[in-house]
Amino acid sequence: MRMADSVTAALLIIGDEILTGRTKDKNIGYIAEYLTGIGIDLREVRIVPDVEEEIVSAVNALRSRYTYLFTTGGIGPTHDDITADAIAKAFGVGIDYDPRAVAMLRERYTPEELNEARMRMARIPDGADLIENPISKAPGFRIGNVYVMAGVPSIMQAMLDIIAPTLKTGTRMTIETVEAEGLAEGIYAAGLSEIAAAYPGVSIGSYPSFSTAGFRNQIVVRGKDPAEVAKAVSDIRSMLGRLKGDLAPL
Amino acid sequence: MRMADSVTAALLIIGDEILTGRTKDKNIGYIAEYLTGIGIDLREVRIVPDVEEEIVSAVNALRSRYTYLFTTGGIGPTHDDITADAIAKAFGVGIDYDPRAVAMLRERYTPEELNEARMRMARIPDGADLIENPISKAPGFRIGNVYVMAGVPSIMQAMLDIIAPTLKTGTRMTIETVEAEGLAEGIYAAGLSEIAAAYPGVSIGSYPSFSTAGFRNQIVVRGKDPAEVAKAVSDIRSMLGRLKGDLAPL
Repeated sequence: MRMADSVTAALLIIGDEILTGRTKDKNIGYIAEYLTGIGIDLREVRIVPDVEEEIVSAVNALRSRYTYLFTTGGIGPTHDDITADAIAKAFGVGIDYDPRAVAMLRERYTPEELNEARMRMARIPDGADLIENPISKAPGFRIGNVYVMAGVPSIMQAMLDIIAPTLKTGTRMTIETVEAEGLAEGIYAAGLSEIAAAYPGVSIGSYPSFSTAGFRNQIVVRGKDPAEVAKAVSDIRSMLGRLKGDLAPL
Repeated sequence: MRMADSVTAALLIIGDEILTGRTKDKNIGYIAEYLTGIGIDLREVRIVPDVEEEIVSAVNALRSRYTYLFTTGGIGPTHDDITADAIAKAFGVGIDYDPRAVAMLRERYTPEELNEARMRMARIPDGADLIENPISKAPGFRIGNVYVMAGVPSIMQAMLDIIAPTLKTGTRMTIETVEAEGLAEGIYAAGLSEIAAAYPGVSIGSYPSFSTAGFRNQIVVRGKDPAEVAKAVSDIRSMLGRLKGDLAPL
């Protein structure tokens, strides 16, 4: 199921506003879909508050386990924006005003506007590369395998487009969805389990959803070998067909 | 900021479908807002795949750190539903068919319908209490300080309503939002930082958002003492008023 040669990632969302429910996160789903699309396996997500030791500890746990760590949030000009300092601490490096970042901020702000608070956005850990921000100029940065992005979705998305071409990517997942069309999970679970065991290189999930129209079950087949995925899908369709035949009124 | 007497929680979302972006999570925001509303501080969220050792390790890390751990996902009848087994392993207890859970499933399924796959939903770790599922009958469960709920949002929400009255809750947060009305974060950041320092029992965040209408900044003030929150809000309004006066054309 998990390939040895796969490129992996974790995502760290930083911000009290997500944990109190005040802001509904829009970045997890976007980044998950984006990384899957370019052949990077997102393996873990964490959300932590604006508390330095929590950020440091999550960054160090995640950057050592996965090929890449992406973070969002906490790089603005206010006192609760502490991500850059926490990342410097996690890497054990210094942090200071970066002349390249100051130059970027000067594209947006006059010398008078560029006060101490805004200058905070030019504080970058030693040894980091900048990630350009085409929308509001204040950059993100990369240090080691950690990519630090803004929390505002439109800015994060622009940064991800800039980062993506520089990333090592693995074989893209082939993903197929089979509609269970009226069959309950409990009816096809045994058959699906047998098919899952027969294709160890393929990951098969069953996802019920519920709306006013009733339950709807979808079976999702994922794998890096398109031929194997196609065979598993064909076996699943046959199995569902047989079950439907069994249940059909005479 | 963090009260010693506060009741804390973590949330663990279990499921490959969230990490691939196939399913966009709807539970984090709902649970975050719900817990905040009843006086429980959500301190951390993790999303892990349907892999037993990942679930075990996250459960053990989180249940030891917080008053409560809530989980969603992985309690259905198919082969990828491994949450109950992982929780039993995390607690080092056995797992078996629970007669109470079997009785609940019998309310929904005829003896013929209640096949081996569906019976999987009655496998409950030893020593756990059941959490009723008014929608599709298959129960969640509580063991120690861990509450195991379904991933389907409507079922999770029904389970949370059943759990909530049994939870220890802390003082509810008072939350006030102040619109920065046209003022940029970089303009009020220094003043806001001073106010934040003056009210150590209050947490103050500044949240920019961006739409076709441009940037909009909101300052959110949270605390358990309503009087202190009101004072901080009043100081923030005065500070913003002064800044607007400074910027107003003569």
